[in-house]
Amino acid sequence: MRIVRHIRKLKGYVPGEQPRSANVIKLNTNENPYPPSPECAKAIARFDATSLRRYPDPDCTALRAELAKMNHTSPERIFVGNGSDEILALSAKCFVEDNEAIGSLDPSYSLYKTLAAIRNVKWVGVPAPAAPLKVTPPISLFLWTNPNAPTGEFAEPADIKKFAAKFKGVVIIDEAYADFAKTNCMSLATAADNRNIIVMRTFSKSFSLAGLRVGYCVGPEDLIAALFKAKDSYNVDALAQAVALAAAKDRRWMKANVAKVKKTRKCFTRELEKRGWDVIPSESNFVFARPPKPLTAKKVFKGLKARKIFVRYFPGQLTGDRLRITIGTDEEMQALLAALDRDSDVPIQ
Amino acid sequence: MRIVRHIRKLKGYVPGEQPRSANVIKLNTNENPYPPSPECAKAIARFDATSLRRYPDPDCTALRAELAKMNHTSPERIFVGNGSDEILALSAKCFVEDNEAIGSLDPSYSLYKTLAAIRNVKWVGVPAPAAPLKVTPPISLFLWTNPNAPTGEFAEPADIKKFAAKFKGVVIIDEAYADFAKTNCMSLATAADNRNIIVMRTFSKSFSLAGLRVGYCVGPEDLIAALFKAKDSYNVDALAQAVALAAAKDRRWMKANVAKVKKTRKCFTRELEKRGWDVIPSESNFVFARPPKPLTAKKVFKGLKARKIFVRYFPGQLTGDRLRITIGTDEEMQALLAALDRDSDVPIQ
Repeated sequence: MRIVRHIRKLKGYVPGEQPRSANVIKLNTNENPYPPSPECAKAIARFDATSLRRYPDPDCTALRAELAKMNHTSPERIFVGNGSDEILALSAKCFVEDNEAIGSLDPSYSLYKTLAAIRNVKWVGVPAPAAPLKVTPPISLFLWTNPNAPTGEFAEPADIKKFAAKFKGVVIIDEAYADFAKTNCMSLATAADNRNIIVMRTFSKSFSLAGLRVGYCVGPEDLIAALFKAKDSYNVDALAQAVALAAAKDRRWMKANVAKVKKTRKCFTRELEKRGWDVIPSESNFVFARPPKPLTAKKVFKGLKARKIFVRYFPGQLTGDRLRITIGTDEEMQALLAALDRDSDVPIQ
Repeated sequence: MRIVRHIRKLKGYVPGEQPRSANVIKLNTNENPYPPSPECAKAIARFDATSLRRYPDPDCTALRAELAKMNHTSPERIFVGNGSDEILALSAKCFVEDNEAIGSLDPSYSLYKTLAAIRNVKWVGVPAPAAPLKVTPPISLFLWTNPNAPTGEFAEPADIKKFAAKFKGVVIIDEAYADFAKTNCMSLATAADNRNIIVMRTFSKSFSLAGLRVGYCVGPEDLIAALFKAKDSYNVDALAQAVALAAAKDRRWMKANVAKVKKTRKCFTRELEKRGWDVIPSESNFVFARPPKPLTAKKVFKGLKARKIFVRYFPGQLTGDRLRITIGTDEEMQALLAALDRDSDVPIQ
């Protein structure tokens, strides 16, 4: 047999559509509508292409030092990955034995299920943190997206801490959207007595660098050391290290963009509610909203797509009645609302 | 248990030293002494940093199209990874069941053994392709570096083809150094009737882009599709895709650099031989050479290092009597020879 059984059976993860055409409104993959810091362009401009003949720093030393400063911890507690995706895949290697399972909230980031399938272990979805975790096989890695996706809901750090204290395995708090939330769990990860909490962040969302593939995580030194042992030798390229470092140093730019997104989120939520939509209070850069009857999420999704407005529709019992709509610029959200208003006269087919 | 048993026991792979100081002669990690194509600098200069807010193309469409053209095959037969390292790690996931083993030549690229350890399967080293492979557990993935490292030796494509025909699993021919060799195995991978041969290439060596982390492989469509299923969603960042594409389109630059390296290899080999060294005929961008008695590889390694000349020394029965010396510029090789000549008067401690 050339391909292993569980990969043969696997249906790969399907990321959100990436239409390349310029004249679409793309609100389907939670990208930031604003560009990254101008410092990133400067870092690219001053990057010496001839230095690419050399291998990159395998340890991302300069970037980890800056991230340590940013998060009030030491570089030994920080791991940088080729996107958070790599950190998730390595965690599945490092923290899950073959006869253990990966747990997450349900609904949550749909990649987690695929991740478990690739790792050839069971995935267990639980509706809420209080739900019993006494399952067979036992869960040894729990992935807690906070704020959660696609719901945008926020769990209180104190509740996650309580959960982790009782949990024997590793809890990864996926804080991809934390900069858009009222607070976050970083202090749980940096606490001296933390033994099993890893907080994961990304440059993809608040720093507007999805194209760059840089994520990082903060946790106890022994867990971080395990990730280092399991990673590819040179997992983050030299250009990505330089650009992420430039972005990390310009937090003011990131925060200004986040403030704009939060303001738009508030207005857009109100506008949807005016039109009878049910919107879950969001602490992220998207909303998860249910259209009023007789509209259905699927119909609106298709109708918007026909008008070149891309949002995300997740079929299924827990998610199929809502749409996940990324917060774009004010203009983009107004265009979406205008399309909805037209559609309330002319039914979407 | 928070960290899985086999990772806890693991000693991570240690890549060659990456001294950051400018005034060293670095001949220890087989980097190209010449810069990448000026087209790479141009691609970086014209790269629109604001586009980084969007996710990259998850399928590397433009790059795979160019690589397909370069290798006279179709894009469906090509997979691009975050360095060849990622392709190796994914192959260990896709082509090796838990109760199977990974095989390679011995000696060979020392990462392979670590790769098997991370995958938690047995690694089996065989001295030569003709050696029996009937071992328990059975080998389902054979990694054949050609030209081999650290020896620089070249195996004839016909011999590898014969081996693969009898082998039930997948054979990955790691052709990191193929551009420096007299010929290569690409036609085995692109052949219509190929069912189990993957040829892997990298932009790190001949294209002078080690810092960029782009590798690719060519093989049967079903094996390539398996790698796609197991990969992270967005495994190659947008900048890396753009720069690798620029390099791929300027093969003339790469070939000119390769010609220079080969010329230097020839001269340097002759100079070492004049000094009584035994040099294995190399088809790569390094030589694997044994110093004459009473010198030892370890002593010369240390002596050169004290003079800020870095070469690679692999302790161990099969490799410990030789040094692997990357072919640098003519000036760098002359500096190394001069250091050796001084050292024959003044013994190295």
